[in-house]
Amino acid sequence: MSSDFTSTSGSGTRKFIKPSFAYLIEKKRDKGEFSEDEIRFIVDSILDEELPDFQLSALAMAIYFNQLSAQETATLAEEMMLSGEVVDLGRISRPKIAKYSTGGVGDKTSLVLPPLAAACGVCMPCINGVDEDFVISAIDKLEAIPGFRADLPLKQFVEQLVKVGCAMYAPSASVAPVDTALYKLREQTGTVPSLHLITASVLSRKLAEGAEGLAVDVKWGNGSYIKDLEQAKQLARSITRVARGMKRRCVALVTDMNQPLGDTVGTALEIAETIKLLKGEGPEDLKELVLKMGMEIVRLAGVAGSTLSAKQTVEKHLSDGSALEKFKEMIAAQGGNTAFIDDPSKFTPAKYIRKLPAPKRGYVHTINAGMIARGVQVLASNKKGKPDPSVGVSEIKKVGTQVKQGEPLMMIHYNDESKLEAALEYLRSAYRLAPKRPTPPPLVVERVA
Amino acid sequence: MSSDFTSTSGSGTRKFIKPSFAYLIEKKRDKGEFSEDEIRFIVDSILDEELPDFQLSALAMAIYFNQLSAQETATLAEEMMLSGEVVDLGRISRPKIAKYSTGGVGDKTSLVLPPLAAACGVCMPCINGVDEDFVISAIDKLEAIPGFRADLPLKQFVEQLVKVGCAMYAPSASVAPVDTALYKLREQTGTVPSLHLITASVLSRKLAEGAEGLAVDVKWGNGSYIKDLEQAKQLARSITRVARGMKRRCVALVTDMNQPLGDTVGTALEIAETIKLLKGEGPEDLKELVLKMGMEIVRLAGVAGSTLSAKQTVEKHLSDGSALEKFKEMIAAQGGNTAFIDDPSKFTPAKYIRKLPAPKRGYVHTINAGMIARGVQVLASNKKGKPDPSVGVSEIKKVGTQVKQGEPLMMIHYNDESKLEAALEYLRSAYRLAPKRPTPPPLVVERVA
Repeated sequence: MSSDFTSTSGSGTRKFIKPSFAYLIEKKRDKGEFSEDEIRFIVDSILDEELPDFQLSALAMAIYFNQLSAQETATLAEEMMLSGEVVDLGRISRPKIAKYSTGGVGDKTSLVLPPLAAACGVCMPCINGVDEDFVISAIDKLEAIPGFRADLPLKQFVEQLVKVGCAMYAPSASVAPVDTALYKLREQTGTVPSLHLITASVLSRKLAEGAEGLAVDVKWGNGSYIKDLEQAKQLARSITRVARGMKRRCVALVTDMNQPLGDTVGTALEIAETIKLLKGEGPEDLKELVLKMGMEIVRLAGVAGSTLSAKQTVEKHLSDGSALEKFKEMIAAQGGNTAFIDDPSKFTPAKYIRKLPAPKRGYVHTINAGMIARGVQVLASNKKGKPDPSVGVSEIKKVGTQVKQGEPLMMIHYNDESKLEAALEYLRSAYRLAPKRPTPPPLVVERVA
Repeated sequence: MSSDFTSTSGSGTRKFIKPSFAYLIEKKRDKGEFSEDEIRFIVDSILDEELPDFQLSALAMAIYFNQLSAQETATLAEEMMLSGEVVDLGRISRPKIAKYSTGGVGDKTSLVLPPLAAACGVCMPCINGVDEDFVISAIDKLEAIPGFRADLPLKQFVEQLVKVGCAMYAPSASVAPVDTALYKLREQTGTVPSLHLITASVLSRKLAEGAEGLAVDVKWGNGSYIKDLEQAKQLARSITRVARGMKRRCVALVTDMNQPLGDTVGTALEIAETIKLLKGEGPEDLKELVLKMGMEIVRLAGVAGSTLSAKQTVEKHLSDGSALEKFKEMIAAQGGNTAFIDDPSKFTPAKYIRKLPAPKRGYVHTINAGMIARGVQVLASNKKGKPDPSVGVSEIKKVGTQVKQGEPLMMIHYNDESKLEAALEYLRSAYRLAPKRPTPPPLVVERVA
């Protein structure tokens, strides 16, 4: 059954004969390239619920194996973006740059960068996407602040961007609904790791948020859903290349996620570390990542030209307190009690703190960040409601640190003794000690522009 | 969500933890090999309608790309067979051999071989599967005989095999229901051409019919759904190898389907040609294929040992009329009027016959059998009910035949003048003439045992 509709895309009005979904699946199965009309038809059919799930999932698997070209990916991103509401930031004259991270254990940059960018004069819209289940999302962390709300109407999002310059909102059903539907199916059909579907998904959402440019952090390693460095590089290249094809500025850093970022993992503990970072303090690895991503953002925005001026701009707004001020403004705009930012000791601490002792002397050789995340997840798990924000781990000994036997590898904050043993199993298994000092891995492996 | 159930397969009772369907899809996506328990779980979940279609179709696509091993295919075939009724032919002492053909244009061997085998003392159960849409199925042809019924209960199938030695039944909902469900999904998701899913499908059905051995005809060419010779060879090897793993004797011939088999295409016309073949007459190509497949069947059955005695056995039962007699017994057992077999002129002829003239002099260089099938399909199409059995084409000039300009390439039998032009377009485009005599393609390309 095929019927006609008139397409006005490309160089003029012409007829497009709707193909069958089976034909489209076979085309991709046989390495064919979809036309713009075909991709528009697919996206429209998902939106209209005319493309049955069993055909869409087969198509996604065919795409997983046979890829999408840069042109196909760009069209898919564009059409998925247009499937829902596109935030109009035309009222804002400042440059509008979004950031995207594949997510990692202990990463606080998603909380630091929006207010930092805003302090530097860049508008940074953030509507969060779906996170890996073992990572505590930025929204989860912010919602530990009493009063803070992320599920606010899109209209308010724009108002806040005008006033404050940054905003952190929960996913909205009205933004890129086709991406939401497709992603839900991908999660259950082994098709999440398709490089090109990830690229189209990210770009459809970030451009729907009104971004003119995009700074990307692709993490690889045992604490990322991308375990393979080569794949991380490919994703970084795919996103930048397709974004360029869509006439958007884009820079991607490929960064290490083979140990937690910073010294803490856990909701309230990470908020406290975030505040340090916003003052230009905190652990070296996170400071480096905040600085490098911040520099990319101000350069993409055109706020700074040279590397040196970019570095100076970012460092200035951290050290003069303006980034922290923006953070408080953002929290306040979304209903949060900023007294908790002024004094993080207001967060209810965990009842117990104990050390994870080193089983022998030596150097921390490797850390499995995913295992640490799972250990913290066990401590925070709560059958009745939200995960417990007060638990976590702190003072994490990083790769290359020398320890004596019995010395703490980390401090464990917990409330429920019955969960400790299960958590300890994950935490212990995360560490490998060795007699020789290892070469710590580089934090930024590659820059793709 | 996973729960336990106790499996009694293999070497004893042990626990099998049900995996998630997403895990199974990812396993095959990443080239993993399924255990017997996993395949049994998949088949059981399809039968119980617990495996959602959208996950099954993604799994089928992952199998299309990453294959199944011979062991996995055998287990899948076995489990799909056991998902429904398995015909018990224990009462029959004669050897029980099934045949399977991938289907082709003008092929009459599916009608000739069962009675021929029965005449030779071999029991041949035939429950037909799903055919390609452009091919007239064996059941369609037989149902043109007044009174003939193929949709009869399985109980009667066994009775008929005891009495007659052969039977041609329509697909039964109770035989291999999981294969039926899977095939229906495959048709709409571009996963029909998976070699290993075809293999498992064929074997699950043929073994459910009670066969001890299997003779296979894999056709390649423009009149088959397998257009590529190498793929046909791979399918022949896959079926024989997996059948052997299941302790079944199996021989496969890879045969040419780049021109119609025999001189006719069309329901009643093909019945008439079938009767000739059952008398040891008819066109050379079909006689050769009947003889070669017949020889494989009697050797698989152990009725004949040497090639010579196999040839003599088959030729004897064609020339002495016993194969034709069996055909009539089978038709009668299924309610058909055998007067139409005694005198095929009883079939209502088409109103009009006209020639398809050669546009120029030369040799028939190639024929597109698929195009001829589609031309006949146009002539036979009937909005109200079954296709018209009286139409078709006869006296088909085969590859290598010399023709003068205006001489008939075939005779066209039709009833509805309004369909002629559309049919002629297909039929004309099927022929390529050339000034030099081409080398006719070999009929049997390879024998795989």
